[in-house]
Amino acid sequence: MEDYRTKCIELLESRGVTVNDIADCARFLQADYHVDLKKEELLESVMSVLSKREVQNAIMTGIELDVAAEQGYMKDKDLAKILTRDEGLYGVDEVLAYGICNLYGSIALTNFGFIDKKKYGIIAKLNEDGKDTGTVNTFIDDIVGAIAASAASRFAHRWVK
Amino acid sequence: MEDYRTKCIELLESRGVTVNDIADCARFLQADYHVDLKKEELLESVMSVLSKREVQNAIMTGIELDVAAEQGYMKDKDLAKILTRDEGLYGVDEVLAYGICNLYGSIALTNFGFIDKKKYGIIAKLNEDGKDTGTVNTFIDDIVGAIAASAASRFAHRWVK
Amino acid sequence: MEDYRTKCIELLESRGVTVNDIADCARFLQADYHVDLKKEELLESVMSVLSKREVQNAIMTGIELDVAAEQGYMKDKDLAKILTRDEGLYGVDEVLAYGICNLYGSIALTNFGFIDKKKYGIIAKLNEDGKDTGTVNTFIDDIVGAIAASAASRFAHRWVK
Amino acid sequence: MEDYRTKCIELLESRGVTVNDIADCARFLQADYHVDLKKEELLESVMSVLSKREVQNAIMTGIELDVAAEQGYMKDKDLAKILTRDEGLYGVDEVLAYGICNLYGSIALTNFGFIDKKKYGIIAKLNEDGKDTGTVNTFIDDIVGAIAASAASRFAHRWVK
Repeated sequence: MEDYRTKCIELLESRGVTVNDIADCARFLQADYHVDLKKEELLESVMSVLSKREVQNAIMTGIELDVAAEQGYMKDKDLAKILTRDEGLYGVDEVLAYGICNLYGSIALTNFGFIDKKKYGIIAKLNEDGKDTGTVNTFIDDIVGAIAASAASRFAHRWVK
Repeated sequence: MEDYRTKCIELLESRGVTVNDIADCARFLQADYHVDLKKEELLESVMSVLSKREVQNAIMTGIELDVAAEQGYMKDKDLAKILTRDEGLYGVDEVLAYGICNLYGSIALTNFGFIDKKKYGIIAKLNEDGKDTGTVNTFIDDIVGAIAASAASRFAHRWVK
Repeated sequence: MEDYRTKCIELLESRGVTVNDIADCARFLQADYHVDLKKEELLESVMSVLSKREVQNAIMTGIELDVAAEQGYMKDKDLAKILTRDEGLYGVDEVLAYGICNLYGSIALTNFGFIDKKKYGIIAKLNEDGKDTGTVNTFIDDIVGAIAASAASRFAHRWVK
Repeated sequence: MEDYRTKCIELLESRGVTVNDIADCARFLQADYHVDLKKEELLESVMSVLSKREVQNAIMTGIELDVAAEQGYMKDKDLAKILTRDEGLYGVDEVLAYGICNLYGSIALTNFGFIDKKKYGIIAKLNEDGKDTGTVNTFIDDIVGAIAASAASRFAHRWVK
């Protein structure tokens, strides 16, 4: 689904995230294993992850929810409040993220858990910006983490073959 | 979170689903094992599943998405079209459902797969109504299936103890 | 990992399962959508699923556990008893199966739940044979179901593109 | 299943792991949120996690596999070699771990990914010892991580209520 991929890259950019930012997170996750790895070498994996239909669906759904809470047109006001505060016990954002990582096996899930706690690069920025009252980044930071984790896992599997 | 439970039961009712409908689906899933089981005996399990915060979050999020597509205020028009058609390759609805079932172990997941394909009771009705252009039931049928599958699994575990 | 694939096909055959049996289960899962589909058309998807490293690992691990319980060299006698009886509340076999299905998205998981409850073809036979005291098929029936469910899901995704 | 819990605690001890070691890992995972938290306060959560039948099954199955590879009675010699080396692309150990974490929601999964990469306390020790040719700790380090991650998640959910 090439056309949805282009759409999703634009959606991510509209929320301040470039494919280069995601490749940088993926490189961070592989840094222990390949010191000299360049961000460019992970960009191909990021682009491949973005081609999967399930990934595109997660991106569209997650960003719609962030935007609906942020712009105030979400009908369920309790849910809007939960998303605006990025409440710790709201875990649907992580559930969507696992839906991506699962496609890339158990290493991707472990990678996600690590970068989600560690916060790195664009993920740290999204998280920080999400604390402002005007911005809701509840879903996007997890989705970006999941794409990076999946791209790093895909790279690791290919390296071995 | 008792208060969110009441809210979620009302939300489900606003979409045409009662806790009795869900208990009936759970009974169907247990019927092979306990012929004489009554719906009432499964109602307590349904109510317990509905008390979990993760389940409440999934209900609120899924129904918000169905309603946003149905009432036309969803910003992402591609996503609205996908949800309105309940496209076969859109799987975020099942991802949310698994987020519920996972809490109840592997039997709940198997139960869900069965009732999702078999369609029974209120799930068949939601699915049929969702084919009308005016109604979007993409998330709710899977969420109802997941709650029923989880309640049946919880019941089975307790029976053994 | 071509060489592990050959090994895994031989392992499956040593337990009475051929790739044709698995393709037949995958066809059963797609029959509602494509009436005229032939088993042969799904064989390519089965072979592709069997090439994945995670799938090979699950096959080797599951069959080792079945054989260890069956041949009596399993050290943990409680576990051997649980596997020999194929106890309903032992769910590690399904957990391994989900580890396979997850790689193929949410449709694969739903397919698995359905065929696991419905039992069809070789899965029904494995299940029946496993009731004999001399045979332990606790893991293999779920693994075969997961491979078939994944192959059917892979086929469905490709059909659409 | 109180009796299997006692058995599982003994199994863990036979591999060098105490419930106190696990509580210490759970405390580490909660340290950012509750500075003064004592290990003892998490012990109750660890004991509750160990009461779940699915957790007991994962412990028994994982330790059986480690021991079978370590003591040389595993029939599949390829699998024994993979487990002895703790090969990076073997992920069935993580799959079993997720089977535990899933029962405790998405926070448990994130916790697991973090402690699995970070290695802390007994997990670091198990990992280090597993590098010796004589010791196989492929499954147990992930299972211990999963129990700690689940106990920390359970504690976090209760704290809020």
